[in-house]
Formats: sequence, C-alpha cells, structure tokens
Amino acid sequence: MTRVYLDHNATTPLRPEARTAMVAAMTAGGNASAVHAEGRAARRLIEEARQSVAALVGADPRCVTFTSGGSEAAATVLSPDLSGVTAKGPFARLIVSAIEHSCVLAGGRFAPESVTVCPVTEAGVADLARLGALLAEGGPALVALMAANNETGVIQPLAEVAALCRAHGAALVVDAVQALGKIPLSMADIGCDALFVSAHKIGGPAGVGAIVTASEAVAFAPLVRGGGQEGRRRAGTENLAGIAGFGAAARAVATEAGEGARLGALRDRLEAGLAAVVADIRVIGAGADRLPNTSLTLHPGREGETLTIALDLAGIAVSTGSACSSGKVAPSHVLAAMGISPREARSALRISLGWTTTPADIDRFLAAYAAHVKTGAARAA
Amino acid sequence: MTRVYLDHNATTPLRPEARTAMVAAMTAGGNASAVHAEGRAARRLIEEARQSVAALVGADPRCVTFTSGGSEAAATVLSPDLSGVTAKGPFARLIVSAIEHSCVLAGGRFAPESVTVCPVTEAGVADLARLGALLAEGGPALVALMAANNETGVIQPLAEVAALCRAHGAALVVDAVQALGKIPLSMADIGCDALFVSAHKIGGPAGVGAIVTASEAVAFAPLVRGGGQEGRRRAGTENLAGIAGFGAAARAVATEAGEGARLGALRDRLEAGLAAVVADIRVIGAGADRLPNTSLTLHPGREGETLTIALDLAGIAVSTGSACSSGKVAPSHVLAAMGISPREARSALRISLGWTTTPADIDRFLAAYAAHVKTGAARAA
Repeated sequence: MTRVYLDHNATTPLRPEARTAMVAAMTAGGNASAVHAEGRAARRLIEEARQSVAALVGADPRCVTFTSGGSEAAATVLSPDLSGVTAKGPFARLIVSAIEHSCVLAGGRFAPESVTVCPVTEAGVADLARLGALLAEGGPALVALMAANNETGVIQPLAEVAALCRAHGAALVVDAVQALGKIPLSMADIGCDALFVSAHKIGGPAGVGAIVTASEAVAFAPLVRGGGQEGRRRAGTENLAGIAGFGAAARAVATEAGEGARLGALRDRLEAGLAAVVADIRVIGAGADRLPNTSLTLHPGREGETLTIALDLAGIAVSTGSACSSGKVAPSHVLAAMGISPREARSALRISLGWTTTPADIDRFLAAYAAHVKTGAARAA
Repeated sequence: MTRVYLDHNATTPLRPEARTAMVAAMTAGGNASAVHAEGRAARRLIEEARQSVAALVGADPRCVTFTSGGSEAAATVLSPDLSGVTAKGPFARLIVSAIEHSCVLAGGRFAPESVTVCPVTEAGVADLARLGALLAEGGPALVALMAANNETGVIQPLAEVAALCRAHGAALVVDAVQALGKIPLSMADIGCDALFVSAHKIGGPAGVGAIVTASEAVAFAPLVRGGGQEGRRRAGTENLAGIAGFGAAARAVATEAGEGARLGALRDRLEAGLAAVVADIRVIGAGADRLPNTSLTLHPGREGETLTIALDLAGIAVSTGSACSSGKVAPSHVLAAMGISPREARSALRISLGWTTTPADIDRFLAAYAAHVKTGAARAA
C-alpha cells in the first residue's frame, strides 16, 4: 500500500514540473557566469526562474536574490546594514516575534543582546500593542515577522505590522517561507521591505530559496562574498538545477486557483474526523486565520511522538511540529509562546496537506488514528 | 555537430552517476530532520553522501559539513573563532595567498584590515619565505591556501605550508575546490586543519559543497544558524538532491584510477598542438607542478575574449580564466600576482579538460583554433 504523506510543512514532495525542469537543467550544464553557449543557456534558466519567483509575490525580477534556502536568506537579510524603502539602517536592534522560525530567532547578523522578542497572543498572533510599545521605546529597529507560522498555520497581521513599522521608522522583513503558495502574497499589499521564501515548501527542491526586496532601493551586504553572482548580492556558482526547479514550482503554484479552498475543505474534514474519534481534541489557532493546509491539534493524554511513530508504522507521515529542530526533544517554542504548557505541547500532532493530498489520504489517516486510539483503549481496559 | 566542452574548471558536466543519484533523491522526497520513513530515507541518502565525500579526502565522515558550495564554505570556515587541531583561535588575522579564489580573498568573517596577502613567485606558487616572514611578524594567524589554482592549475606546496603554520602556531585552511578529483588529496598528508570542496568541480551539481575538518576537535561557529542540521554546524533543510549527487560524483571519482594520466596526456597534446600553430604561445605555470587537466596559455597579439567568442561560434566552450568574476572585465588577479602585465593577461585562454574530454575534442579544438588564426592572418594580409 502506498504511503500517505501529510507532512507538507516540513517538505512538500517535488512537483513533476519541478522535476522536469531540474532534469533539463542538469543537461544544460554550464556555469552561468561563462560567456559561451553552455554558460548562456544556464543563465537563461536562472533568469526564467527569477521571473517566475518574482511573479508569485508580485515583485520585480531584479529584486530577487537566490540563496541556498530560507535559513541562509534570514542570516543574510536580518542585518543591521539593511537599507529599506523608507527606513534606512544601520539598525541597532532586531525585533522578532516569539513564534518565528529558529533561523529568525537566531537573529541573523545582529548580536544576541540586540534581539528583542515580541510576544504573541494566546491565538498565536503577534501582539500588536506590545510591538507598538517596543518600537516606540528604542532606536531604529528592524522587525522580522513570519507571514504564517509553520507549526500552527496561524496567519500574521502583516499589513498592520508594516504600518506600525512605517510609523516608527522601522524596516520590516517577512518570513514568507510557510505561507508562499498557500495564501496570496503580494509584496505591495504587505508593504514590507523584504521577504524571503524557500523552494521546498512549494514543491520545488530543498536547498534553494530567495530574498525578495520591495524595490531595487533596498540593499543589504552579502553574507556569502567574493563572486559577482546575483548582482553581487550572493557569491557562489548558482545551484542551477535547484533554481530551475524553484522556478517551475513557482509557475505551477501560480496556476493553482482554488487549491487553497480544496486544501481547506480537506483540513476541515480531517479536524472534524479527529473530533469524532476523540472528543477532547483541541485545534490550535482555531480562532485565528490559518493557512488552509495546516492542522495542529493537541491530544490530551497522548504523546505526539508516540502518535507519530504509530502512524508512521501504519504508513502515514505526520509530524509533532517543526522538522527543523532535529534531535531536539524540548517542547515547541511556538506553543510555549501561546501559553500552552510543556505537558500539553507534548501531545501535539501537526498534519499538513499539500498538492499530493487526496480525500482518500484523509480517510486513511482518520482510520489509522482511530485504530491506534482503539488499540490503546483496549490495552488500557 | 555536438559541442566540445573544454571549460571543466568552471563547471564539469554532471556525471551520469550523479544524475541518477539526484533523480533517486528527488523521489525519496522527505525532510531529513523528520522522524517518519520519508525523513529517514532522506537522512540515509545524506549520510551515504557524507561517507563518500569523506572517503575521497581520507577524512572521518563526522568531520564533513555540507554547505551550498565552496563560497559559503569559505565564508564559514575563514573565521577568527576557528579552533584547529593544534593552533587554537581566536585568530587576529588571516593570511591568504595572492592567487586565491575571490571567495577566499573576500576574507570570510575577518575584517578587511585583518587580511594580509602573501605574494606568489613568478611560477605562481605561494612564496614560502614571505609566508614564513608574515607568520613570524604578528600574532596568531589563520592561513588560507588553495591546493591548486583554478586559472593556472598550479599546485601549491601544501605540506610545506602546513609545517610552517604548525611551527608558528597558525591554523591552515585549504581551498581544495579545484584540486579535488584531479590529484590525490589526503587530509592526513596535507596536515591542514580544514579544507573545503565543491561538487560541481567533480561532476556533481552546482550549489553544494563541504567543509571537511581534520578531526572532530576542529570547531567553527555556524554562518547559517538556527537549525540542528549538520551537527548544528550549518542550519537549513539539506539540499537532498544536491548532496546525493555530490556523493555519487565523489564515488565515481574515487574509481577513476589513471584519469589524471589520461587528462595529462590530452593536455600535453593540446599544448603541443597550440605551439605548432603559433610558435610564441606561452604556457603559464609550465615550470611548476600543475593539475593534469588545466592549460592556461598566453596568445601574444590576440585577445582571449575574441578567441573565446570565435571558438564558441565554432562549437567549442573555453574560457579566458575564472568564470566567477561575471561581468568583470579587469584582468585576472592571478596573472597579475605572477608578474604578468594586464596587456599580456588579456591574451589568456584557459582550456580545462575533464571526464567528458576525448582525443577528438582536442583535435576539434586545435582545428578550430588553427582556422581562426588562419582567417585572421588572411584578413591582415
């Protein structure tokens, strides 16, 4: 029996369009900095991908800098020297929300003592009042906020935060890694100075991402230096196959009208099904706007890790939360920030849907979950 | 007519073994940090690649940290906080040879004023006497030297430099990007603290590289932070397809006994053929040990750029030098360091051979070169 993959927020399986583009790029071969035909062919593939990624967020292709992923993008663009559209660095401090990805919490090129954490509400949304107070009480700040959380799917109030930042002379960098392709994202609507994205969350390959700036006026010092690639903003021979795959995935996502509604309906069916099996299941972020593909539930009296392993044995891939904390057994910092106790947090199960997800996948998940719960009940009896 | 690709030092075409491994990895799919079957499958592919890359340089797999390429590796490991096997940081200064790749000349995490450039001899070899003097005259230093130069192919005296470094309490980081797979490289023989390599120079994909340390005692702070990947030495979801391709390319290279001799014979035939067409051609580094695959020649009275374009039109890909200086028209810093004038340097042509190169490729190159020279002579008459 084929496996059911419901861990799209960790890595979405590669889309066939991305695979085709990658295999084609592997044949193209050359070094995009070379002037010969092979080099020019590689250059064309990269520029085509740049246009596709730019289009997906309504940006100018000249404002797209390819990186090796979201983490490198964060390490690069979260920099005191960032020069935004209206607010210009140097920024003496970085304000991040408490539920940011660990690569943002790491603070990029800010010293640890220059990073301030802004709390979130119990609903998992950045606390706007507290952010306003933090912005008011110090010098020029760079603010980093995710468009949507990777564990809960809770969507953040980007436009409001962008307005707050403008009012206080702060610049805003948005981690759009998890939201890209799941909700509409437009650079102009958000009003941020820069955002960053990652290919493997939209069905492109892992190991490629991008920083996208609001205009060519936004500047940052390169982190990887010494070559003329990416307009001197990121040195190193380009990941040709990866970038081509990213572009193809971006084009595929752009044509998926209605996919959000489809996934949202499947997610609702999943959550209703879970509640029908165990009545006291709690859906995290149920009261907030969420990505349509993400479901984080607490399962009182159970361990998320045990559930994950049992489901894996039943042929179903789910997660306890972020996949990026390999080897870490500490409970989620995201749930802690929402006031959820470590004991409750350990009962969390994240189910994330994507382009491969079918109604049958949801049914198989629910059947396996019910069987596991029933076995446990029989054992306890 | 198929094209002849003689620009292997820029990017070697992807080996079939690497392509196969990449396509397989694309199907494996999961996130290597996830505990489910898909995640474990991804993890296995990464660890298999780690063993293959380690074996190619005689290192412990636990000492291999995958990066997005040589440039990121340089930016990471060229750090004042590097803790070597015998010499421990913090290092107040970085000494680099004048012919290093631009990513090393950029100085990693050292401030520009802390970077000292050590000259090379006219043969293109690091000047050991000057290096000794530089090491003696200041505080603890980190030294960066390439195993072989990407433009000239000249092999550097690594063992002697390693001994000098040990004698002066300095640590040594070796840029083995261009030498890997072309000459035997053994961590133990070199005696360096760390080296770094790149997949696309050995027939793996662009966008993946590695830092390899001499032992687990060698430590450096991560540049890309915030995730537990790569033993907390490099955050970010791993480039699964790229890493798998790197591993497969490393395994392919390891089985290629006699390839160096084969390429060296082809290179000698090429240089003899060039000299037969135009007598005053000068082979750069002819008096030094060179990589067997690399030929950098000066063509008095001609422009390397014109030659490159003419050959490209004739179906042959060659280069004027490094491909990493996209958009830069300044003459090579490598040739300048060897005392070659800008005018002479502009006549340079780099021909680099690799696993796809056949005797017929050399013959086609020589015929096209002779035809171009003849046309020019006819025009001038």
